[in-house]
Amino acid sequence: MKETEEITKALLEFRNERDWEQFHNPKDLALAINVEAGELLELFLWKNHDEANKEKIKEELADVFAYAFLLAEKYNLDIKEIVMEKIIKNGEKYPVDKAKGTAKKYNEL
Amino acid sequence: MKETEEITKALLEFRNERDWEQFHNPKDLALAINVEAGELLELFLWKNHDEANKEKIKEELADVFAYAFLLAEKYNLDIKEIVMEKIIKNGEKYPVDKAKGTAKKYNEL
Amino acid sequence: MKETEEITKALLEFRNERDWEQFHNPKDLALAINVEAGELLELFLWKNHDEANKEKIKEELADVFAYAFLLAEKYNLDIKEIVMEKIIKNGEKYPVDKAKGTAKKYNEL
Amino acid sequence: MKETEEITKALLEFRNERDWEQFHNPKDLALAINVEAGELLELFLWKNHDEANKEKIKEELADVFAYAFLLAEKYNLDIKEIVMEKIIKNGEKYPVDKAKGTAKKYNEL
Repeated sequence: MKETEEITKALLEFRNERDWEQFHNPKDLALAINVEAGELLELFLWKNHDEANKEKIKEELADVFAYAFLLAEKYNLDIKEIVMEKIIKNGEKYPVDKAKGTAKKYNEL
Repeated sequence: MKETEEITKALLEFRNERDWEQFHNPKDLALAINVEAGELLELFLWKNHDEANKEKIKEELADVFAYAFLLAEKYNLDIKEIVMEKIIKNGEKYPVDKAKGTAKKYNEL
Repeated sequence: MKETEEITKALLEFRNERDWEQFHNPKDLALAINVEAGELLELFLWKNHDEANKEKIKEELADVFAYAFLLAEKYNLDIKEIVMEKIIKNGEKYPVDKAKGTAKKYNEL
Repeated sequence: MKETEEITKALLEFRNERDWEQFHNPKDLALAINVEAGELLELFLWKNHDEANKEKIKEELADVFAYAFLLAEKYNLDIKEIVMEKIIKNGEKYPVDKAKGTAKKYNEL
């Protein structure tokens, strides 16, 4: 079994033992990703780039991943595949010669 | 190489070709996760649970994953390990006998 | 009529002319606030504190306000009243002598 | 003094008594809006449209407003003015005859 499938499997077991599938519709999973992303962001609030607490980041980032894996599972998406596809797509939006060294959005390049 | 490491490797290559490491400090990566999570959420706005466009979800979810992988890399975190650790921790907060079938938060169980 | 009521009135007129009340349930309005907050945040991504575009900030911030006013209206909340109440509550959590000059959260003071 | 100015004045007094202006740069205020928007959103997570707790909504919404007022103040923006301007702009993107009764985005109308 692939590594990302193992992670998803563990998350589904945890969910199913608690009979939580009934709550985990795609819309609420997208909400959950935002809620956890917000908690992750709070760890950096009023702080310089690298002042956040690593232990807490680990936990909040794990929550973001957990709901992202669960949403991917809802749509039967393969994590590696969708990220690789997006990298190719972004390569077209951000060609190296134009995008190198600048943080501009593709529509401003 | 593990699957999650392969994903991270591809993301780092994409970033380094564009000399973008200078922008990718942990705080801005946490911001980026929130921005992408918001774009994912928008796909569900004003809609029922399952009415969102799967193709677009695939792309926005890939973006959430991409920045989450990059932030994990900053702190040298192993994705599977941090998710598994969080599952154990959540198992203590949400014991099956109390949490089964309810969406209440652990402090309300 | 109070100023905040005038703003709400204009927003409701805009909504009702388009027959959009059917979409504006409290949950989706909370989603909309997050979506707009994410778009506002994107204006600061990869940038220093003050490098964002003021014109765009004005628009995204207006969107955040618009949905926040509409959600307040759903619950019949008076904006000034709820902010003033929160200031009093925060004054108890963050007494001047402890909170002065520090960005720590109240549970770390 | 206008009502929105009174609210801003109270927020600035609270901030200045605690010497917090040093933390309140525009970027972190935009972060704070997102963090609070996420906490507001959490009140609706796994719930139907109207099941959220009104008392808690009042508090989280007040936080969203507070940081939104403070960010507006940074750019010297008048709340009523920017919302009214955005209503006019949205009226062009969403003309009544096309937008009535549909939740489609303007680029899909």
